[in-house]
Amino acid sequence: MAAKPKSRMELIASLAKRRGFVMPTSEIYGGIGSSYDYGPLGIEMKRKLADLWWREMVRKHENIVGVDTAIIYHPNTWVASGHVEGFTDPLIDCRQCKARFREDDLVERFAGGVKGADEPPLSADGKHIDPAHPAYALAPCPHCGTKGSLTAPRSFNLMFRTWIGPVEEAGEQVYLRPETAQGIYVDYPQVQTTARLKPPFGIAQIGKAFRNEITPGNFIFRTREFEQMEMQYFVKPGEEIEALHYWKDERHAFWRDACGIRDDNLRVYEHAPDELAHYATNAFDIEYRFPFGWDEFEGIHNRTDYDLRRHAQHSGKERDLQYFDDQTRERYLPYVVETSAGLNRGLLAILLDAYDEDEVEGNPRVVLRLDPKLAPITAGIFPLIKKDGLPELARKVYQDLHREFDVFYDESGNIGRRYRRQDEAGTPFCFTIDHRTLADQTVTIRDRDTLEQPERPKIDQLTNVLRDRLFAK
Amino acid sequence: MAAKPKSRMELIASLAKRRGFVMPTSEIYGGIGSSYDYGPLGIEMKRKLADLWWREMVRKHENIVGVDTAIIYHPNTWVASGHVEGFTDPLIDCRQCKARFREDDLVERFAGGVKGADEPPLSADGKHIDPAHPAYALAPCPHCGTKGSLTAPRSFNLMFRTWIGPVEEAGEQVYLRPETAQGIYVDYPQVQTTARLKPPFGIAQIGKAFRNEITPGNFIFRTREFEQMEMQYFVKPGEEIEALHYWKDERHAFWRDACGIRDDNLRVYEHAPDELAHYATNAFDIEYRFPFGWDEFEGIHNRTDYDLRRHAQHSGKERDLQYFDDQTRERYLPYVVETSAGLNRGLLAILLDAYDEDEVEGNPRVVLRLDPKLAPITAGIFPLIKKDGLPELARKVYQDLHREFDVFYDESGNIGRRYRRQDEAGTPFCFTIDHRTLADQTVTIRDRDTLEQPERPKIDQLTNVLRDRLFAK
Repeated sequence: MAAKPKSRMELIASLAKRRGFVMPTSEIYGGIGSSYDYGPLGIEMKRKLADLWWREMVRKHENIVGVDTAIIYHPNTWVASGHVEGFTDPLIDCRQCKARFREDDLVERFAGGVKGADEPPLSADGKHIDPAHPAYALAPCPHCGTKGSLTAPRSFNLMFRTWIGPVEEAGEQVYLRPETAQGIYVDYPQVQTTARLKPPFGIAQIGKAFRNEITPGNFIFRTREFEQMEMQYFVKPGEEIEALHYWKDERHAFWRDACGIRDDNLRVYEHAPDELAHYATNAFDIEYRFPFGWDEFEGIHNRTDYDLRRHAQHSGKERDLQYFDDQTRERYLPYVVETSAGLNRGLLAILLDAYDEDEVEGNPRVVLRLDPKLAPITAGIFPLIKKDGLPELARKVYQDLHREFDVFYDESGNIGRRYRRQDEAGTPFCFTIDHRTLADQTVTIRDRDTLEQPERPKIDQLTNVLRDRLFAK
Repeated sequence: MAAKPKSRMELIASLAKRRGFVMPTSEIYGGIGSSYDYGPLGIEMKRKLADLWWREMVRKHENIVGVDTAIIYHPNTWVASGHVEGFTDPLIDCRQCKARFREDDLVERFAGGVKGADEPPLSADGKHIDPAHPAYALAPCPHCGTKGSLTAPRSFNLMFRTWIGPVEEAGEQVYLRPETAQGIYVDYPQVQTTARLKPPFGIAQIGKAFRNEITPGNFIFRTREFEQMEMQYFVKPGEEIEALHYWKDERHAFWRDACGIRDDNLRVYEHAPDELAHYATNAFDIEYRFPFGWDEFEGIHNRTDYDLRRHAQHSGKERDLQYFDDQTRERYLPYVVETSAGLNRGLLAILLDAYDEDEVEGNPRVVLRLDPKLAPITAGIFPLIKKDGLPELARKVYQDLHREFDVFYDESGNIGRRYRRQDEAGTPFCFTIDHRTLADQTVTIRDRDTLEQPERPKIDQLTNVLRDRLFAK
């Protein structure tokens, strides 16, 4: 029986594990569902993507500054933001076997009808389970098959709870932040004052967030622990629509031009009015054509003054949260446009987009066509063979370069195999030190994509060669 | 009445808040005790310190690679490591007023004796409360004063608990990692294999850890949420002592030479046998002379094969955790030497060490003498006055430099005041564009420490000027 061909996602997950990009968390203990660790290649690539974003957002914009807020905020933050009340998923339990289901999964399952009933047990709009519908008494539990054993949908909060203080009864209940944005809103008055910012200005943050998702999945697309790269842009009311469109275009360009994702795998999707989150009046998603379909990895939202207004009400610090313009003597609550990207999702999109299979000299090859700026290893450094003084010379080249660049020395196995290993790691260049190097100090540069070796620069030119290629785009 | 002079720690905390280095978390809601956010200057400095460490440890060492493990590990990890059982603080409650105390605080309080008793209510070695001692019935609660109301000491775990899954009864209990090290131990077989490493080799990680401390404090020295910069070095048994001494010297040199901490404020402290943690047989602390006394901000420990052995036993993956040397055909559990630094503590030591007050032209000045590599802003760029085309030219200088360097444009207020602001931020250089710049394209460079302006380089030389000064050390 022939093995089922692997999906593109399976191929990436397998390569990621095999080469140390991404691997399941605590695997010797059987792992934790949908939780991943980044290995040596993965962490370098994630660092480079995060640094590229930081450079693009913070360093290049005079009016954008960074912050880094704690993961555990004051719990009233989440009352004000609406998360305590509203950040929930409706779940349904089976009274018989205690299995638990998401309401939307059961809506989908029962939409085609239930055996013995004329109509599906759904609300009039077809979007919810109607527990009072007579057909619901005939609906079977998808796990044990018992009819009429399913409860009405109940809301469960997706925030992880914990307690400050040594015992839970006596401690203060707090939450792991489900998004980084609220920390920026709460700190905005201090940041604005200490950095002497005037609207429009932005506050950027990269950090972890946690959601107790019921159905995580699709490799690193949806995990309970993830990283966000967010910028909250504070504008004078009335200037938010212009800012929204500006940032939508900027962010789209970042993924396409700076990260090298192919244009036909990217699209900008505008939310219809009935798709908007409660805090937003306009929203664009930047979507990637994932193997499971188009899905978002960055959102650009007009959050209006919703969050700041809520924090003003709940903290009683109305005046502190207003901006006072000492030129015009106006005092107002700024409007906020956010650009909120998933670092892990962005990484996944880039890996999927870069994955390719081709043939080299009649042999199949797996290659990651990563942008040189994002490749974990910028250059492999190889002695052609393991004698005649070539390893010593190659190691000297490595020593010259490794303070400034991510270079990798490898002398094991034949040269073709060493190239293949770097192809799988996405390394754009390999420098090979051969017998001619002994004579004239030149090395070959092998290009991952063209497979050509068009030039032989001298060893002392390699720093400039790498600088040029890294900053070419 | 004269105000009490501020301690050095108060001065730093006040400067940190005023200038946006570090501020209390969620302050509009009254904050969370001992929890801090990093503002625009703080995050840049923290990023630079973390990058410097990464470059020093990972990029410069061919045999050290990075990882980034999840914050929530498989819970058996903490059973194996001993944290579930042993990571505890003994606490004592007052039955009357419900106040809670650390045992060691009460030992100190009662060591001098208790009114009406001949002896203090302590164990024979004087290190613990003896609840059976007759004097304990006379010991008053330090909060409400009731005698005999204090319970026996009870152990409380310092790990934050939470649950995966939507409701706690049905979910899996997990912990926020109290240290990053265990994630490296658990992943080591996969990292070693995928990166083809041979002992000695190291695995490095920077990330958050969480401890439900009973008495956090001293600004950012001890907080419940903190960041570690750790490297776990895997060696062949018998080579651990040499590695321990090598890394102790390397890490000491890092803080002194790369970060610029003064030598007389640094010391290396060797743990006496009775001070060692359960997992270590030799340990050195790198200590800083904090305002509250010498205290550690990095530990270099010989953890032997303790952790790997425990994980081998608890996971049943004994063979996976052994290293097989295919040259010598030996199979062994490596020994581990760790270098574990507190990123926040290191930052605090550097800030304290850099803080200085002097006089400039008869006026008092606060200045942070930060190493240029670690200063949040590398150069201020100022037009001397706000007319004659100087702002336009200064802004052009800013545009030329801001992609590569952290530069800051400022045209507001008189030039002396602008210098003062940069002195407080630790900015090592300021470039001023004046009328002579219009004629000959040269600018002044004002040095934060010498206050001298010895040269006038041309605008197009400024990139090289900054590169030279950043990499001079």
